[in-house]
Amino acid sequence: MAAVRRLVMDVLKPHDPTLLSFTERVSETESVAGATTSLIELDQEVQNVKVTLEGEDIDVSAVEDTIEGLGGTVHSVDQVACGDRLVTDRRTLQDG
Amino acid sequence: MAAVRRLVMDVLKPHDPTLLSFTERVSETESVAGATTSLIELDQEVQNVKVTLEGEDIDVSAVEDTIEGLGGTVHSVDQVACGDRLVTDRRTLQDG
Amino acid sequence: MAAVRRLVMDVLKPHDPTLLSFTERVSETESVAGATTSLIELDQEVQNVKVTLEGEDIDVSAVEDTIEGLGGTVHSVDQVACGDRLVTDRRTLQDG
Amino acid sequence: MAAVRRLVMDVLKPHDPTLLSFTERVSETESVAGATTSLIELDQEVQNVKVTLEGEDIDVSAVEDTIEGLGGTVHSVDQVACGDRLVTDRRTLQDG
Amino acid sequence: MAAVRRLVMDVLKPHDPTLLSFTERVSETESVAGATTSLIELDQEVQNVKVTLEGEDIDVSAVEDTIEGLGGTVHSVDQVACGDRLVTDRRTLQDG
Amino acid sequence: MAAVRRLVMDVLKPHDPTLLSFTERVSETESVAGATTSLIELDQEVQNVKVTLEGEDIDVSAVEDTIEGLGGTVHSVDQVACGDRLVTDRRTLQDG
Amino acid sequence: MAAVRRLVMDVLKPHDPTLLSFTERVSETESVAGATTSLIELDQEVQNVKVTLEGEDIDVSAVEDTIEGLGGTVHSVDQVACGDRLVTDRRTLQDG
Repeated sequence: MAAVRRLVMDVLKPHDPTLLSFTERVSETESVAGATTSLIELDQEVQNVKVTLEGEDIDVSAVEDTIEGLGGTVHSVDQVACGDRLVTDRRTLQDG
Repeated sequence: MAAVRRLVMDVLKPHDPTLLSFTERVSETESVAGATTSLIELDQEVQNVKVTLEGEDIDVSAVEDTIEGLGGTVHSVDQVACGDRLVTDRRTLQDG
Repeated sequence: MAAVRRLVMDVLKPHDPTLLSFTERVSETESVAGATTSLIELDQEVQNVKVTLEGEDIDVSAVEDTIEGLGGTVHSVDQVACGDRLVTDRRTLQDG
Repeated sequence: MAAVRRLVMDVLKPHDPTLLSFTERVSETESVAGATTSLIELDQEVQNVKVTLEGEDIDVSAVEDTIEGLGGTVHSVDQVACGDRLVTDRRTLQDG
Repeated sequence: MAAVRRLVMDVLKPHDPTLLSFTERVSETESVAGATTSLIELDQEVQNVKVTLEGEDIDVSAVEDTIEGLGGTVHSVDQVACGDRLVTDRRTLQDG
Repeated sequence: MAAVRRLVMDVLKPHDPTLLSFTERVSETESVAGATTSLIELDQEVQNVKVTLEGEDIDVSAVEDTIEGLGGTVHSVDQVACGDRLVTDRRTLQDG
Repeated sequence: MAAVRRLVMDVLKPHDPTLLSFTERVSETESVAGATTSLIELDQEVQNVKVTLEGEDIDVSAVEDTIEGLGGTVHSVDQVACGDRLVTDRRTLQDG
């Protein structure tokens, strides 16, 4: 199977655990070399966060298990990079 | 024949397989060194994704077979780079 | 536990201590390698500041203690980076 | 004669050959080190594409022959770089 | 005490001394490695300038003394960087 | 005399010679290391082009002779860089 | 005295001498390592130009003498960098 090198997800999570604990736990998932979370929006019930993960071969279902174990939901997967080479998405004339 | 070094496509795909499986499968196609997919838009039936591929000499019809085998359709080819040198598309005064 | 490598917070603080003293004190917190604060907005009572911290393994509760000891309140945690690799949040087609 | 180092053209081409075949053929033209094509717009009859070529001394009339042999028309030449040094067009205060 | 590595201030100053003399004098303050001033706005009475200072450990009260000795007023401190590492303020999804 | 290192001009030229021949000829002018031309606008009679030249010591009147010999007119000189060091024009708070 | 390392000025000058001669003469001023001028605007009487100078220790009054000797007027000094280190003006959240 091709190695998953980078993953960007849009996640909904409850306020508890905090964004800090959530990020620590996600980054501790086996196969994740680093995780960065950025707050998109928050309301009384949930936080909407952008999660960016990198690794040599990310075990995505383990990551999803971690997120769900923390009460979170993957709202959408926004970017996936696979293969031997980490390819950068470049802006083209067709991007909005 | 000139080597195809980079390819950017606009693809429509069903929700199943997921963007993750889709990207893994595309990146496993012989001749592809790496693949990155970015979600453009989704509705109830389909996902519209931008696919960026790099390789030393991409076998584009093999890639198209993979995409079609996964239920996807290439909506448009938005950028193609061929040759010994990978040429970057630079912004000019005529770009919109 | 995963190492916290970078932290961006939105903080409300009184005018006293000054932004300078506040930043010195936050950066002196054990585990913080450097701190940069940027003024977002100020009114008669409070300053709203963006705080960016980096370190090999930031002790976030010690940082929060420092901020609260200076009369400040963490209004929101806007970005957290954890893990062996410091992952950069990259713009995708889904960012607003 | 001065060496042509980079050329950017706005080209109209029929749908057949595809953008892929078109780019392969243009990049195979003697003197072309690499070619990148980007889709600007398409309608039922034609594709409007931006073609960027680089080489040590591009034989522009050979390139034009290739394009015309493929049914394409050079709508405008948008940028030309000649000489020993490849000079970058930099934005000035007079650019729109 | 933590070292102050960079400081950005919004300063109001009279027309005399000139921006040149003002900048020379500020940059001559003990502990300042370099100073750059940029004109924001001017009216008949005052100049509003952005002052950026760097040093290994800036003595901010000495800088303030210099500015006040030149008839200037620090209108606001807009950015402070302290610590062993000079941390860059990066744009997040929460920046306006 | 100080060496002219870079020159940006706004030029009006007839359609004949083509932008390609025009650029080749300008770049062949003694003292010019490289020339890049970018199309700004065209109407039935003339092409309006931005010409960027670099060299160790550009002979500007020779360049103007070349341009005029090709039927062109220098509409304005938009940027000139002279001296031992090639200084970059940086954006300031006063740029529009 | 602190060394002046970079200077950006907004200058009004007559059409004669040309921008080319003007820049050559300014860059020949003792202490100037390089000068770049950019056209901001022109009307029938005058040219409004942005002048950027760099040097190890620019003699600003000699530069002003050169400019005035050429019929020019310094309309405003927009940026001054002094000191051992050339400090870059970085964008902050308070910039307009």
